[in-house]
Amino acid sequence: MAKYEAYLQQHRERHLQELADFLRIPSISALPEHAGDVRRAAEWAAAGLRAIGVPHVEILETAGHPSVYGEWMVDESLPTYLIYGHVDVQPVDPEHLWETPPFEPTLRDGRLYARGAADDKGNLFIPLKAVEALAAVDGRPPVNLKFLLEGEEEIGSPSLPALLEAHADKLRCDAVLCADGGFYRVQRPDITVGSRGICSMQIDVVGAAGDLHSGSYGGAIQNPLHALAAILAGLRSPDGKILVEGFYDDVRELTPEEKEAIAKVPFDEAEFLAGVGVSQPFGEPGYSTLERLWVRPTLEVNGMWGGFQGEGVKTVLPGQAHAKISCRLVPDQDPDKVMSAIEAHVKAHTPPGVTVTVSRIAGSAPAYVVPPGHPLLKKAAAVLEDVYGEEPVFTRAGGTLPVAAMVESILKTDFIFFSFGDPDNQVHAPNEFLRLESFDKGVRSYIKLLNSLAE
Amino acid sequence: MAKYEAYLQQHRERHLQELADFLRIPSISALPEHAGDVRRAAEWAAAGLRAIGVPHVEILETAGHPSVYGEWMVDESLPTYLIYGHVDVQPVDPEHLWETPPFEPTLRDGRLYARGAADDKGNLFIPLKAVEALAAVDGRPPVNLKFLLEGEEEIGSPSLPALLEAHADKLRCDAVLCADGGFYRVQRPDITVGSRGICSMQIDVVGAAGDLHSGSYGGAIQNPLHALAAILAGLRSPDGKILVEGFYDDVRELTPEEKEAIAKVPFDEAEFLAGVGVSQPFGEPGYSTLERLWVRPTLEVNGMWGGFQGEGVKTVLPGQAHAKISCRLVPDQDPDKVMSAIEAHVKAHTPPGVTVTVSRIAGSAPAYVVPPGHPLLKKAAAVLEDVYGEEPVFTRAGGTLPVAAMVESILKTDFIFFSFGDPDNQVHAPNEFLRLESFDKGVRSYIKLLNSLAE
Repeated sequence: MAKYEAYLQQHRERHLQELADFLRIPSISALPEHAGDVRRAAEWAAAGLRAIGVPHVEILETAGHPSVYGEWMVDESLPTYLIYGHVDVQPVDPEHLWETPPFEPTLRDGRLYARGAADDKGNLFIPLKAVEALAAVDGRPPVNLKFLLEGEEEIGSPSLPALLEAHADKLRCDAVLCADGGFYRVQRPDITVGSRGICSMQIDVVGAAGDLHSGSYGGAIQNPLHALAAILAGLRSPDGKILVEGFYDDVRELTPEEKEAIAKVPFDEAEFLAGVGVSQPFGEPGYSTLERLWVRPTLEVNGMWGGFQGEGVKTVLPGQAHAKISCRLVPDQDPDKVMSAIEAHVKAHTPPGVTVTVSRIAGSAPAYVVPPGHPLLKKAAAVLEDVYGEEPVFTRAGGTLPVAAMVESILKTDFIFFSFGDPDNQVHAPNEFLRLESFDKGVRSYIKLLNSLAE
Repeated sequence: MAKYEAYLQQHRERHLQELADFLRIPSISALPEHAGDVRRAAEWAAAGLRAIGVPHVEILETAGHPSVYGEWMVDESLPTYLIYGHVDVQPVDPEHLWETPPFEPTLRDGRLYARGAADDKGNLFIPLKAVEALAAVDGRPPVNLKFLLEGEEEIGSPSLPALLEAHADKLRCDAVLCADGGFYRVQRPDITVGSRGICSMQIDVVGAAGDLHSGSYGGAIQNPLHALAAILAGLRSPDGKILVEGFYDDVRELTPEEKEAIAKVPFDEAEFLAGVGVSQPFGEPGYSTLERLWVRPTLEVNGMWGGFQGEGVKTVLPGQAHAKISCRLVPDQDPDKVMSAIEAHVKAHTPPGVTVTVSRIAGSAPAYVVPPGHPLLKKAAAVLEDVYGEEPVFTRAGGTLPVAAMVESILKTDFIFFSFGDPDNQVHAPNEFLRLESFDKGVRSYIKLLNSLAE
C-alpha cells in the first residue's frame, strides 16, 4: 500500500477541492427548477471520470435526469465490476436549520458539511479517487471497471429500469459495487446485505370548494383537516402497528436463526436514541429496534399540510388538506400490492363529507437481500478488517436502493454495498456532512478491494 | 327619503371611489409585517369621519393596532348611539385563488371584489355615508353619535378590553350599533341577536431533534406527524361530536321553544351546501344545521403542517408537526375553562415518543345574546321591512364578535347588529365581495334607523 499511500497524501488537498466543487452543484432531483443542476452534476462526474483516465465516458439520456456511464476494459480475462453511485441530492429544507449554506461546502473539525457530502457525492467520489491512484501508480486498474452514476436516486430512480434494459449488454458485469450507503455505527465497519424497498403516495382531501369562515360554517360542514387527521391516525395503531388491511400479508417472517443473528449485532439503543434527541424507542410491538429498522416494513407520513400556517390566527375552515406518505418494504412485499392495499384502506375509511384521492408517486422498489455466502462478501469483509482493524458485522439498511432490486431483476447480477457513510451524517436532513476519515479510509479500502478482486 | 335619495345618487360614484381607496390598504392585522397598513387604514377612517363632519376624531393607541374614535354630540337631550366597525382585514392566502388581486378593488357584475369589501370595510363604510347624507341634507345627524373603529377584530380584539376600560366614560352610550356582519340569506333581511364566542390554540409536537431519513429511522422513532394526526383525530368523533372531556359542561341547552323558533327560520339546506360546493351536511348528531351553526359549540382545525410539502417525494421522518385549532363557543361556556379542558385532554392523550405543547392564542371571547325583546330590535326590524319589503327574522351569527361580550361586560350597554353583508360574500376566503345593492340599501337603512332613533 505504501506506493498508493504516497500518491494519496500528495494529492489529498486537490481531491478535497474537487469534491467541494462537486458539492457546490445544487443537483436536487426532486425539484423541477434544479433539473439543469442535476445535468451539470452529471457532466461534472463525466469530466471527473475522464480526468482519472477512464477511456470511454458518456452521458446516458433518460426520460428524466441523465446518468453517467464510464467504461475501462483492461483485459478480457479479468473480471468486470460496475461501480454504482448517484449525482443527485435531496432537497435542503428547512434551510434555516443549516449552520452553513447547503451548497457552500465547509470544513469544520475534520468534517466536510454540504448537501450530498455523504449521500452520495462524497461516497461515489471515494472509488473514483481509488481508481485514480491505482491508475496513476500501476498504469491501469487491476480489473475491468464500469461506472453508472445516476441522477434520480433521491426520487426513487424512476428512469433506471428502462435505462438498465436499454443498455443491459453494455452494463454486463460480474457484480455491482454500490458506492452509496454506509456503516450503522460511527467509523466501525459493517457490510450491508440488504435494503428495504419503498413506495410513496399522496393523499388529497377536498371538502368545500374553497376556504370557509370557521364561524359561518364551523360545525355544519366537514373539515378536510379533521378528515385527513382521522385517515392518517387510522393507518397505524397508537403503538406503531400498521393497520392497513393486508399490509403484512407477504412479509417474510424471520427464522429464529435470523432473529438471533440480528440480536447479536452490537447495537447501543441508548446511543441511537440520544443521537436523534429522543428519549424512548417507538414501533411495532414484538420487535427490537434493529428489527424494526431492518426487517419490518413501515408506513410514515413524510409531510402534511392544509389551512393557515402563518403567525397568529386565521379562523378558516379550509377546503383542502394534503399528506405525503411512504412505506419501507421488506421481502417479499410487492410495492404495487401494498399501494393497492393502502388505496383500499383509505377508500374504506374515508370520513363523510369529503372527497379523498390517493395517488401513487413514481419510484417504488421492492426490498433486496444479497445472496447469503456470496464470495464478494468475504473479500469485502477482509479488506474492511484490514483497514479498520475490526471484523465487520453483516447488517441491513433501513433505507432503499431501488437500483439493488433492479440490478438483480434486469441485469441478473449481484449487488454488493461497499460504502463509507456514518449513521450520524445527517443525510436527508440539515447539516449533512462526511468525515474526512471516511474519505481517507474509503479510498484505501477501494484500492485494496479492487486489487483483491483481480486475484 | 326623497331629499336623501337625491343626495345619495348625486354622490354615489364618489362614495364607491372612496371605498375602493379604503380597500386598497392591506390592513391584515394577523401579519406583523402589515402593522403599518392597519395604522394607515385607521388614519384613512379618521380622515373619513372628519370629512363627513364629525367634529371630534382621534386615534386611540393600544398595546397592538390602534382604534379610531369619533364623536358628534348634537343635543344632550337626544340619545347617543355608538357605531362599531373594524378597519383590519383577514389574510389573503391562498392568494392564487383570487380572480383579481385582493387589494386591487374590482367592480364586476354589480359586485365590488376585494379583501375587506364586506368584512368589514364595506360594512362600516355604510353608516359613515348615511351620516354624511344626514348631515349634508339636515345640517346634523338626528341623534348623538359616537364611532369606534378598531384594528384588531380579525385577531380577536386582544387590546379592546383595556381600551374599553380606559375610555369607558368617553364611550358611554345608549346602545352600540354594530356595522359588522350581515344576513344569512342573500339580500333578505334578518337581525342577528347573538354571536358565538371563540378561543384559539396552537398545538406543537416535537419528536427527534431534527428531520430524519425515513429509511434509517422509520419504524423505530415516533413520527410527530402521526402523533399530531392521532391527537387531532381524538378531538372529535367521526360524526363531529367534540370528545374533549368537559367541553359541553356549561353549554346552555335549548328550551323546546328556542328549538322550535330556530326550526321556523327559513333555511334552504341544499342551497347552503351547494353554495360551498359540498354534497352533504356534517356535524354533531342530534342537531339541525342551523343549530350546529348558531347554538352549538365547535372545534375546528384551522391549519396543520409539518414535513415536506413540495413537489415530488422527500422521504423524511420530520422532527416537528404543528396545528392551529379554534373553538366557537355558546352561552354559557367560559373560554378559559374550555382551553383548560383542551389542554388537559391533549395532555391525557399525548402519544408516546413526542413532546406536545398546547399554547393559548390571545383574543378569546365568550358568546353574546341580545336581551330578548329589546326596543331597538323592533325599530331596526321596522326599518328593514320598509327597505327590503319583507319582515326580517331573528337569527344568530355562527361567527364571533368579541366586542359584543366586551361591550356588555365593560360598558354595561346593549349591542345590536345592524349590518348588510350577504352569506356568499366569501369573507375570510379568496374573492371576497360586497354587492353594490347591499351598500345602497344599507345606507338607506341606516338613515331611516338613525332618524327613527331620534323619535
